[in-house]
Amino acid sequence: MANENSNVVFIGKKNVMSYVLAVVTQFNGGAKSVVIKARGKMISRAVDVAEIVRNRFVSDAKVGKISIMTEEVQNEDNTKSKVSAIEIEVVR
Amino acid sequence: MANENSNVVFIGKKNVMSYVLAVVTQFNGGAKSVVIKARGKMISRAVDVAEIVRNRFVSDAKVGKISIMTEEVQNEDNTKSKVSAIEIEVVR
Repeated sequence: MANENSNVVFIGKKNVMSYVLAVVTQFNGGAKSVVIKARGKMISRAVDVAEIVRNRFVSDAKVGKISIMTEEVQNEDNTKSKVSAIEIEVVR
Repeated sequence: MANENSNVVFIGKKNVMSYVLAVVTQFNGGAKSVVIKARGKMISRAVDVAEIVRNRFVSDAKVGKISIMTEEVQNEDNTKSKVSAIEIEVVR
């Protein structure tokens, strides 16, 4: 889904508004589409970011395709764990 | 999206496998579609439930439409807050 024209914002442990600002900045720079990606517990924050951008900052933005998947991550002890992930496309 | 034939599982604070079992039970009872709903921090758990059902228990199940939205909830002091929500449709 994340085609070459998409800008990606990966959600981590910063506060929600940091990521909202990152997405809004990409739209203000001319992006037609921004993909918000997150894993594990950050998934809820990704949804918050998409909703805040759409409702408060970029009123002509719409939620596009939403995908969920399972990714494998390597732990510090070299074992592997599975973690859920989400990709939320926001288009304007 | 949640049409009348859909069965709904609302994600709360129980452990993930409780909700996986609820979804699997509905499919085993003949449901063609189950909608997993969650709000706030439970959104991540909803994605886990959908992924575990699909990958481990109901191998012919696919993720259908995923919607995100903002809902208004009433606090104990009668003020209102907004909270993000998700609906994940799983179909077989």
